[in-house]
Amino acid sequence: MTQVYDRVALIGLGLIASSMFWAMKRAGAAGEVTGFARSQETRDTARRIGLCDRVCDSAIEAVQDADLVVLCVPVGAMGAVAEEIAPYLKSGATVSDVGSVKKSVIEAVRPHLPEKVDFVGAHPMAGTEHSGPESGFATLFDNRWCLIVPDGAPEDATQKLEHFWHALGANCERMEVEHHDLVCAVVSHIPHLIAYTMVGVADDLSRVSDQEVIKYSAAGFRDFTRIAASDPTMWRDVFMTNKDATLEILGRFTEELFALQRAIRIGDGDELFDYFTRTRAIRRGIIEAGQDTEAPDFGRVKVHE
Amino acid sequence: MTQVYDRVALIGLGLIASSMFWAMKRAGAAGEVTGFARSQETRDTARRIGLCDRVCDSAIEAVQDADLVVLCVPVGAMGAVAEEIAPYLKSGATVSDVGSVKKSVIEAVRPHLPEKVDFVGAHPMAGTEHSGPESGFATLFDNRWCLIVPDGAPEDATQKLEHFWHALGANCERMEVEHHDLVCAVVSHIPHLIAYTMVGVADDLSRVSDQEVIKYSAAGFRDFTRIAASDPTMWRDVFMTNKDATLEILGRFTEELFALQRAIRIGDGDELFDYFTRTRAIRRGIIEAGQDTEAPDFGRVKVHE
Repeated sequence: MTQVYDRVALIGLGLIASSMFWAMKRAGAAGEVTGFARSQETRDTARRIGLCDRVCDSAIEAVQDADLVVLCVPVGAMGAVAEEIAPYLKSGATVSDVGSVKKSVIEAVRPHLPEKVDFVGAHPMAGTEHSGPESGFATLFDNRWCLIVPDGAPEDATQKLEHFWHALGANCERMEVEHHDLVCAVVSHIPHLIAYTMVGVADDLSRVSDQEVIKYSAAGFRDFTRIAASDPTMWRDVFMTNKDATLEILGRFTEELFALQRAIRIGDGDELFDYFTRTRAIRRGIIEAGQDTEAPDFGRVKVHE
Repeated sequence: MTQVYDRVALIGLGLIASSMFWAMKRAGAAGEVTGFARSQETRDTARRIGLCDRVCDSAIEAVQDADLVVLCVPVGAMGAVAEEIAPYLKSGATVSDVGSVKKSVIEAVRPHLPEKVDFVGAHPMAGTEHSGPESGFATLFDNRWCLIVPDGAPEDATQKLEHFWHALGANCERMEVEHHDLVCAVVSHIPHLIAYTMVGVADDLSRVSDQEVIKYSAAGFRDFTRIAASDPTMWRDVFMTNKDATLEILGRFTEELFALQRAIRIGDGDELFDYFTRTRAIRRGIIEAGQDTEAPDFGRVKVHE
């Protein structure tokens, strides 16, 4: 057991917060964990399934005496939460978050915090297509990366947060704010936007029915639908708050797509072949880095009708 | 045991052909299965692992006395193979294929076939990111769809081929040629092209390293890399031969993507939220139709470094 903080408060009780709770319990990483969610329904569910040692009816109550407060709400809601809890934070406490974007979160949260409270940004790069308090599980962060964005926060508070995430199973890596937002646009935000678009196109076509799309999805389309089923509020906020990096990578994406489209139109098979060969190497790297399974079909369990 | 054909010849011994062989053995669907691959190395591997009852050193030898000849070569190579084997086909035999495109295959193959030989197109909608003679397995087609495109072929030959694919574990559905090529552009060809593009963009960026892309791939990017690791020759041929449908769906895709890009640029969160909400329903449909698992993360086995 590695207790890192005496008391941890989770504000927002969705997939990430609930997984953090179960991972904290597994590791003994916190003395007591309080939790708050805006919706009464979520709080009721949390109490029913034993999520958090104590579920509070206000964020203010939840953060009292907490050594670590983790904002687990959509990126667009973090500023308002920070403003609300700021006067009630314990001196010496650390506030952190789990948002997919860092620049706008830091800009929205820091101005509200009292002098004796540090903000250290964190972004656990893990998730599933499910959301809500019942979707969490203790192993979500195992062998996944948690990006730590101190952006000038004190070294001791930063190290303690890294220690905490290690206890939850993650590997930590520090990153500069702007670089974080660019890397995430590439590996996460744009892939999600493209997946949403592809699923939207399929849903839109009058000449191909939804039933056909669903029936024949194993041919490739299916892999896109998992990430396109992610939480809409979270993703709306990501794109609203990481606009610059998103638009930059999207611009690069459409350039490349147009080049391939042109190769198809003029029948340039060599260009397509070379392009398709190059992308295999990246997949190999991901398998070797232990970030995916090489079982055929992801080792999907056999599904039956 | 359900023997459907006395003798089956597989021309080309990659993922699909090798899976067909193991599925035929499991079901007892064929008396004898012969096989041919153009490369000596593939034939050697096939002999070593017991793939096919008899591996032949020419396509001509393999098809002799076969009741069913299945062309399992890339779409662009089918015309030449058909021309080569045509004079040696048994009267009354059925020729079929497993290509992802139907119009161009039918145009390339049918003109070569003798009068007493029927061509019935087939397209098993199943695959993995692996290729080659050692990548096949008996359960690949279980509960997957095999699209049958008779395009005027006799009813008895068509029904027999359907019976055969049922024995291999697949569900069959008949489709018109043009509709087949459009549906596949939506559920398979464009998703693959987009996945290839996304992986190519990530590989291209100088400000984000390959190592970063690989390390943080679990954030969404990873799901694209599986299908972007598919066989380059096969996919080059698909885009070369299904140009019209591909370009049409690609046009629709870029229209939608630009609409979302505009919403990001002008900060229209409602439009993004509505779009992202709609796509969740499609995912639900795929799970309900038994075409994917709803286990978090596809039920991926835990991976370690």
